[in-house]
Amino acid sequence: MSTTPILLTPGPLTTAEATRRAMMRDWGSRDPAFIALTAELRQRILTVANGEGTHAAVPLQGSGTFIVEAAIATLVGPADRLLVLVNGAYGERMVAIARRMGRAVEALRWPEDRAVEPGAVAEALRADPSITHVALVHCETTTGILNPLPAIAAAVAGEGRALLLDAMSSFGALEIDLSATPVTAVLASSNKCLEGVPGIGFALVRPEALERAAGASPSLSFDLHAQWKGFESDGQWRFTPPVQVVAALVEALRLLEAEGGPAARRRRYADNLATLLAGMRRLGFEPFLEEAVQAPIIATFRMPEGRPLAFRPFYDALAERGFLIYPGKLTRAETFRIGCIGALDRRDFERLLLAVAEVMAALEAA
Amino acid sequence: MSTTPILLTPGPLTTAEATRRAMMRDWGSRDPAFIALTAELRQRILTVANGEGTHAAVPLQGSGTFIVEAAIATLVGPADRLLVLVNGAYGERMVAIARRMGRAVEALRWPEDRAVEPGAVAEALRADPSITHVALVHCETTTGILNPLPAIAAAVAGEGRALLLDAMSSFGALEIDLSATPVTAVLASSNKCLEGVPGIGFALVRPEALERAAGASPSLSFDLHAQWKGFESDGQWRFTPPVQVVAALVEALRLLEAEGGPAARRRRYADNLATLLAGMRRLGFEPFLEEAVQAPIIATFRMPEGRPLAFRPFYDALAERGFLIYPGKLTRAETFRIGCIGALDRRDFERLLLAVAEVMAALEAA
Repeated sequence: MSTTPILLTPGPLTTAEATRRAMMRDWGSRDPAFIALTAELRQRILTVANGEGTHAAVPLQGSGTFIVEAAIATLVGPADRLLVLVNGAYGERMVAIARRMGRAVEALRWPEDRAVEPGAVAEALRADPSITHVALVHCETTTGILNPLPAIAAAVAGEGRALLLDAMSSFGALEIDLSATPVTAVLASSNKCLEGVPGIGFALVRPEALERAAGASPSLSFDLHAQWKGFESDGQWRFTPPVQVVAALVEALRLLEAEGGPAARRRRYADNLATLLAGMRRLGFEPFLEEAVQAPIIATFRMPEGRPLAFRPFYDALAERGFLIYPGKLTRAETFRIGCIGALDRRDFERLLLAVAEVMAALEAA
Repeated sequence: MSTTPILLTPGPLTTAEATRRAMMRDWGSRDPAFIALTAELRQRILTVANGEGTHAAVPLQGSGTFIVEAAIATLVGPADRLLVLVNGAYGERMVAIARRMGRAVEALRWPEDRAVEPGAVAEALRADPSITHVALVHCETTTGILNPLPAIAAAVAGEGRALLLDAMSSFGALEIDLSATPVTAVLASSNKCLEGVPGIGFALVRPEALERAAGASPSLSFDLHAQWKGFESDGQWRFTPPVQVVAALVEALRLLEAEGGPAARRRRYADNLATLLAGMRRLGFEPFLEEAVQAPIIATFRMPEGRPLAFRPFYDALAERGFLIYPGKLTRAETFRIGCIGALDRRDFERLLLAVAEVMAALEAA
């Protein structure tokens, strides 16, 4: 198959051809050339978040959920207590991970269309000194809502607790400045705003936190201390890495730098979002979120009122035209989602909007 | 970089160009086209081991170690007891995984150049009725030794225990016939004899064993029951899959079928091994293993006696000529390893032998 669809999803997403082409060779995973590639990867992901000197980069094989579980397994000990700030499915997943592992965990919840409130976080921490760690999802792709990281990080640090940040769908585009914002561990993956292909996640962790966690994880595979020590000792991955995925991510990180870094990428995504929101409103689709809390990552739309659009025929008709949208993740409203991220710009969204108008006319005529 | 080196490693290894080319498109991970690709993957890996009707295919993101850990986490319960049959590093790794997880585990050990003895296994099981599960590494890439699967499986089944088979470096080439050999779970990965790229592992598990394990894993990510139920409910992966790695593996499985299946691949690898062993002996390198226990997967060689060849200059000189060999994993002897697997045939090994002869002459003259 030669034509590749346009993915309007929260990842895997549309990648640049150069990124995919980086997968066209074989690499020996213990060869000096691949060791150098791994070193470049670790260096570049630190640079993205301004974490050189304060954090260590620890890539891990697998999906984004794996790096979240590895961080909890490694950093939240059996005597610790984790508070998860929840306003969507990925917050709930962190609660489920910790609970399954037998760690002490509780949740502070907000509705899915409301951002996490820093004041309420500070209050909860003052009320319960047994909480040692706080976990936050930076941008909840459940809806596309942005949580106010700097204020929440300040609240958590102000109470002397450690913050684990799930930056899965924000890292590489939304601002994360580890030199200014106190975060113990940032967790993200290859296939969202970095525009790589899926297959690895990574943590940027304060070395002091890793040092304290030697041997603490109940999982050999999900042990970020051992993974880190592996990289530090001989530059190699402890277990077989997905070499082509690593090569693609390094190429994608070079492209990010060439674009002008996260600030430039954020502007492109914001332009994508503005084009999308304006166009969809014209077509009668109401965004689920208020604009003040909408991140330029993924937007949730309600189906137009009084119109008989079911998701599946709508999806299929857009897919026939080369656009893959994303189902909703809310239970209480008939919604769907459209991602703004990936190797796409305003022109792709203008073409999408033409396709949506066409499809609506065709489905309503049918 | 346009030329790709020849990898003489236990994986990641040399892949076919068609396999790498399958990574040149983007896939929506929840799109019907990718759901169909996942279904083809699950079907084809069952066919390789003749497991249709008796086993369920459960792919999992990450390295081979991850699927081994997931199988132990899911299938060996807190009240169970695991006996690992060890004659190399991968057996020891299973002991470490189970111990870290807090599962009851013990090891029965053989020297690294001796195959596991079925009689001793039966005896150990009769002596300890508390053992519920036995774990075996089919081919230990530590040395390249082949363990006698049919006789060990019969011994384990004869004593009414469950067998977990780490077939990481054998699956797709060495014979595994699940219709004739009693195995509860076979564990393998994309990037060895299947000749895909690294990034996913998979388990072929008896559905009865999975059903009994609902909610049993202490890990949300490493829960093969939930992973299986996810595939069975909507054909989708629970968490973001490495879509390009999946596409490459499906292409590699189609190439395996076109080659004539595992029996044909085994013949090609055996021819590679025979060419390699004869040529290396001529050049003064002694194989570490006796031929009766040597699998056609990877061979370990001792450095020639009385000759001043250190591994690193030998490696570098071969790498300059386009061949990547593999370090040894034994502590007691100066050895190195050469893999026989990957998209390679006898002519590649003949070229390698010429390069080895050249390098030896050059290093000895220096």
